[in-house]
Amino acid sequence: MKIALASDHAAVDLKADLVRWLREQGHDVTDLGPQGAGSVDYPDYGYRLAAALADGSAEYGVALCGSGIGIAIAMNRHPAVRCAQVSEPLSASFARSHNDANAIALGARLIGPEMAKACVAAFLGTQFEAGRHQRRVDMLSHPSISQEQA
Amino acid sequence: MKIALASDHAAVDLKADLVRWLREQGHDVTDLGPQGAGSVDYPDYGYRLAAALADGSAEYGVALCGSGIGIAIAMNRHPAVRCAQVSEPLSASFARSHNDANAIALGARLIGPEMAKACVAAFLGTQFEAGRHQRRVDMLSHPSISQEQA
Repeated sequence: MKIALASDHAAVDLKADLVRWLREQGHDVTDLGPQGAGSVDYPDYGYRLAAALADGSAEYGVALCGSGIGIAIAMNRHPAVRCAQVSEPLSASFARSHNDANAIALGARLIGPEMAKACVAAFLGTQFEAGRHQRRVDMLSHPSISQEQA
Repeated sequence: MKIALASDHAAVDLKADLVRWLREQGHDVTDLGPQGAGSVDYPDYGYRLAAALADGSAEYGVALCGSGIGIAIAMNRHPAVRCAQVSEPLSASFARSHNDANAIALGARLIGPEMAKACVAAFLGTQFEAGRHQRRVDMLSHPSISQEQA
């Protein structure tokens, strides 16, 4: 799978750990930064990862910041992104099966590296169920149309 | 506070419980639906709540669905919304202090009513810290500008 990761400074160590772990599994992994520990703004990196999903250079995204909250909001500004902020594997699995999420956001200050890996594994290992969920996912891709219909 | 709530069918009971509990505390509460248990599409109700935040008819929003994931994605399509999907009070507090979130999303199939109330209480009871967080919050309000700058 083509997987891209991005973070802010609070999560560079967790990002490096996940990049290494995903490459060991044979995935095609792109690290969109940052590389150092200097302070950066999470929206910049969230938008960068959203763009990689939108242009197809990545199939799945893993977004990381201190809580996972800010970068998840940034990611979901893009209609091509469905990013679920999760802290345990059950939600990571639902994000795929019900929401066809193409990204998850994790909080490096809230969960540890093994829990983060369990979330990513559940996310990548779960198939979208489609069916009744497909219409709702389509509505997320065209928010202005859905807003007019609501 | 002026608080609006919206959900899908999976969370109508939790929504009713939270509406009652928030009114008991003296808040000005608007229930944006749905009212029955019939199947609805969470994007419709997420967009409805996002519109209430954008037009100022609500200061804060509580969005509910089965996992909290889908309705959080829908909410965050709107640049006036910063919606944090949370399952415990610490994240709900960070959503306010760091991200100036104006909405939280909760999963009625993942957390119980007392945990949901603890999340809402932490969310409503925490102030935004501004400072270095303000610039990042501003970037979430103008995603196209930030994307050009990135």
